[in-house]
Amino acid sequence: MVNKATRPTDQIIGQDLWNIQLDEQGHLKHFLTIEGLGSNILTQILDTAESFAGVNESIKKVPLLRGKTIVNLFFEASTRTRTTFELAAKRLSADVLNMNISLSATSKGESLLDTLRNLQAMQADMFVVRHADSGTAHFIANHVAPHVHVLNAGDGRHAHPTQAMLDMFTIRRNKGADFGKLRVAIVGDIMHSRVARSQIHALNTLNTGDVRVVGPKTLIPKDIEAMGVSVYHDLQQGIADADVVIMLRLQKERMQGALLPSEQEYFELYGLTDDSLKAAKDDAIVMHPGPINRGVEIASSVADGPRSVILDQVTYGIAVRMAVMAMTLGGHTATNKSAQETASR
Amino acid sequence: MVNKATRPTDQIIGQDLWNIQLDEQGHLKHFLTIEGLGSNILTQILDTAESFAGVNESIKKVPLLRGKTIVNLFFEASTRTRTTFELAAKRLSADVLNMNISLSATSKGESLLDTLRNLQAMQADMFVVRHADSGTAHFIANHVAPHVHVLNAGDGRHAHPTQAMLDMFTIRRNKGADFGKLRVAIVGDIMHSRVARSQIHALNTLNTGDVRVVGPKTLIPKDIEAMGVSVYHDLQQGIADADVVIMLRLQKERMQGALLPSEQEYFELYGLTDDSLKAAKDDAIVMHPGPINRGVEIASSVADGPRSVILDQVTYGIAVRMAVMAMTLGGHTATNKSAQETASR
Amino acid sequence: MVNKATRPTDQIIGQDLWNIQLDEQGHLKHFLTIEGLGSNILTQILDTAESFAGVNESIKKVPLLRGKTIVNLFFEASTRTRTTFELAAKRLSADVLNMNISLSATSKGESLLDTLRNLQAMQADMFVVRHADSGTAHFIANHVAPHVHVLNAGDGRHAHPTQAMLDMFTIRRNKGADFGKLRVAIVGDIMHSRVARSQIHALNTLNTGDVRVVGPKTLIPKDIEAMGVSVYHDLQQGIADADVVIMLRLQKERMQGALLPSEQEYFELYGLTDDSLKAAKDDAIVMHPGPINRGVEIASSVADGPRSVILDQVTYGIAVRMAVMAMTLGGHTATNKSAQETASR
Repeated sequence: MVNKATRPTDQIIGQDLWNIQLDEQGHLKHFLTIEGLGSNILTQILDTAESFAGVNESIKKVPLLRGKTIVNLFFEASTRTRTTFELAAKRLSADVLNMNISLSATSKGESLLDTLRNLQAMQADMFVVRHADSGTAHFIANHVAPHVHVLNAGDGRHAHPTQAMLDMFTIRRNKGADFGKLRVAIVGDIMHSRVARSQIHALNTLNTGDVRVVGPKTLIPKDIEAMGVSVYHDLQQGIADADVVIMLRLQKERMQGALLPSEQEYFELYGLTDDSLKAAKDDAIVMHPGPINRGVEIASSVADGPRSVILDQVTYGIAVRMAVMAMTLGGHTATNKSAQETASR
Repeated sequence: MVNKATRPTDQIIGQDLWNIQLDEQGHLKHFLTIEGLGSNILTQILDTAESFAGVNESIKKVPLLRGKTIVNLFFEASTRTRTTFELAAKRLSADVLNMNISLSATSKGESLLDTLRNLQAMQADMFVVRHADSGTAHFIANHVAPHVHVLNAGDGRHAHPTQAMLDMFTIRRNKGADFGKLRVAIVGDIMHSRVARSQIHALNTLNTGDVRVVGPKTLIPKDIEAMGVSVYHDLQQGIADADVVIMLRLQKERMQGALLPSEQEYFELYGLTDDSLKAAKDDAIVMHPGPINRGVEIASSVADGPRSVILDQVTYGIAVRMAVMAMTLGGHTATNKSAQETASR
Repeated sequence: MVNKATRPTDQIIGQDLWNIQLDEQGHLKHFLTIEGLGSNILTQILDTAESFAGVNESIKKVPLLRGKTIVNLFFEASTRTRTTFELAAKRLSADVLNMNISLSATSKGESLLDTLRNLQAMQADMFVVRHADSGTAHFIANHVAPHVHVLNAGDGRHAHPTQAMLDMFTIRRNKGADFGKLRVAIVGDIMHSRVARSQIHALNTLNTGDVRVVGPKTLIPKDIEAMGVSVYHDLQQGIADADVVIMLRLQKERMQGALLPSEQEYFELYGLTDDSLKAAKDDAIVMHPGPINRGVEIASSVADGPRSVILDQVTYGIAVRMAVMAMTLGGHTATNKSAQETASR
């Protein structure tokens, strides 16, 4: 179990496949994982998202992807994530097709590749892929036609790169563009979390001063220090003087697996409360990828309190997904001056 | 059972919450119930719908809500009602998200309020809400951000205000704007009908001359006269000289509850036939909210006959829903002269 | 069983109903079946599709049906076919409503006609109909209002005319407009295939030189020669010197019905392999309506090989469906010169 959870992504994906994310001019072609992308690309995503954040607030709709067809290929149900990608696509004026693959093509015994080839023949321009198996988005990106783009909307325990980038966007909006002076603590089930993996890669790439993971031993991979993070098993110590506290959702099914005692005991040890939050900096922000389990990993008073930016994350998620769609499919990057100024460091 | 069915809405909703339907300038902000709205607002809805009825007939699409996001939050399945709201939104050029809540967010254990907050963070501009529990749309309207609008698409036995307004629109188109000279009979299961409740409130607000309810004792609330209607248990007497006869759908599950004998016996006593319709005025119109049970509450010859305006109701339903969306979200009201002339009395 | 499968369509549909496909000026009003349409109409469909094939490749979106509402009425699940109609409608800028009827209206006991009338009252402009019963699209076309158009997306074993026309388009693009000099072989389960029926009618109408059907006796209707085709039970003989080889999908449920031995034996006798394909002309093209059963009716090396135009069929399917929508609902036909030149013979 532990082996499976901690096996290096390289074995799953293969180092050489990371390169397929960029085209020959070094522009973003697919967005599959944070790994292998430089800080220049991540910053470009953040800057481009900045230019769309305004669109979201006022006019909301731009014709950048008018006439393009974006297919949501969700092999795993996820209303929330699918909805944000759908809204991002619609606000760029693209046509959206929602395909729940488990319910359709494969029931006729068609292979994944045949389904892909058919959608491609219908002139799909982009696939947004969610799958329970690690590496599926890479596999698809490696088999699509040259003009088709692939976004990873979560694959197994491997990666959830747009989530990581909306988290970076949230941090930059609140704490400025200099990640070097920031201490960020990620708390909870690191072991099973594709969100945590992608966050750590993004924080490292943006040269974050201090990245920490906090949780019980059973939920932290043994060799996680190799990713350049420090490990804490005590919540107070782990979030001490942190600028950013990221709480992860606790999958309740872990309880049955003997990895965890009870929800109540977990909350006592690792749940973020007004009291335990005092260990962090006075102006620390609290983040969570949602949906939250109130009273399990976070107290309602914190989730709904003044330090929480959890709902801002949802809002920024649209802008970040618009940015990645615009950069890959629309060939568009921010030329917005104020965005560049915000990002310069 | 009777108590539950007839308990005053005040207990469920609270008098003070009615006011949340209007903003400080007296403009329609949410549309949750007919109660608490004056005839000026209702007439404004009808006039605005009049201006959209033409849009439906010819060009069909106007850019009034372009860039806006309308979320259909249906906790109760209803293809027909959802479809009319979806078409209304699309003809106003809004983006529409259909959320079948029972199948998605709540399956992850997220609370209704957290689901709402998340959709709001995705910059939803309007929620169209359908729920089996009375008061849900009010509850939601009371918790959304100031810029978000809520339309009630049916809550429990409480209200279905857009249905009532499309009924008023149908009456006005056929019988003119002077409701004072009209006799309207509502026939069937008054007890369990949110449609009947909203119709009675709308007819009263528009000063209808004579409003009657007709049905077996078991299906009429005891204190219904307090709503300003007269009660009839005999169909012929109830619809005598009526200008408008509104038939309600009979939920077949009432049969099992011992509230009713059999479909056949019900049809003999309360089913509208060519014969029984003779009691009404020669130019009376026959209405029904649909879907109709042929041979249960209405004979096919009447439903498909020259006095029936049942399908016109469906058509007008789009215009009325466009009107309510345009007034609340678009800040738009009719300036259409002919519409105002039609409505003046 | 054989009787039911081979009964003449006339009994199901009625000769007089074929005429409802054309309006008084001889323009295409509905598209229900190939039968009863002349080569001029079929050629017009192909020419119009030619003008949209370019739209698909570059700008993809035209405003021809802006403001129109197209309802996908699917009584039988079919993600692939529904998706191509949906994309065709969206690329013509129409609004699309997807109705899965088995899951909605009929569950409330409403009749098909009442459902239709209601959708019509919501100002639907076109119904795209898929149903397991032969004749449903005709039945619907015979009952809609004069301004509403009906497209048959597959009815029972009767017809699938848009599939047949995309096949004709594929043949014309590859082999030129003179069908008179072509030999076309259709291989597989002819008996249960609405695709084969429509293909044969289309090939005949376009005066194809030699049309053959190939398959085991149990899967070929006894009186099929009356349709003007020759019958072969040996694959090599059947496809000898063919210009076009069309493979049909083998429904696996036929195996249980004792109509067929085993998948393996079927593949040995009727599966198209590199080896058996040698019997056809050197430049023969291989077609299949999809989804393909690899290793059952076709070898992967053929399906993915240089003679296969299977994915081109999918692409052309969008253009052909756009053409039929544009001709019926938009009153649009090709004036594209190069298309007319391609089609002249």
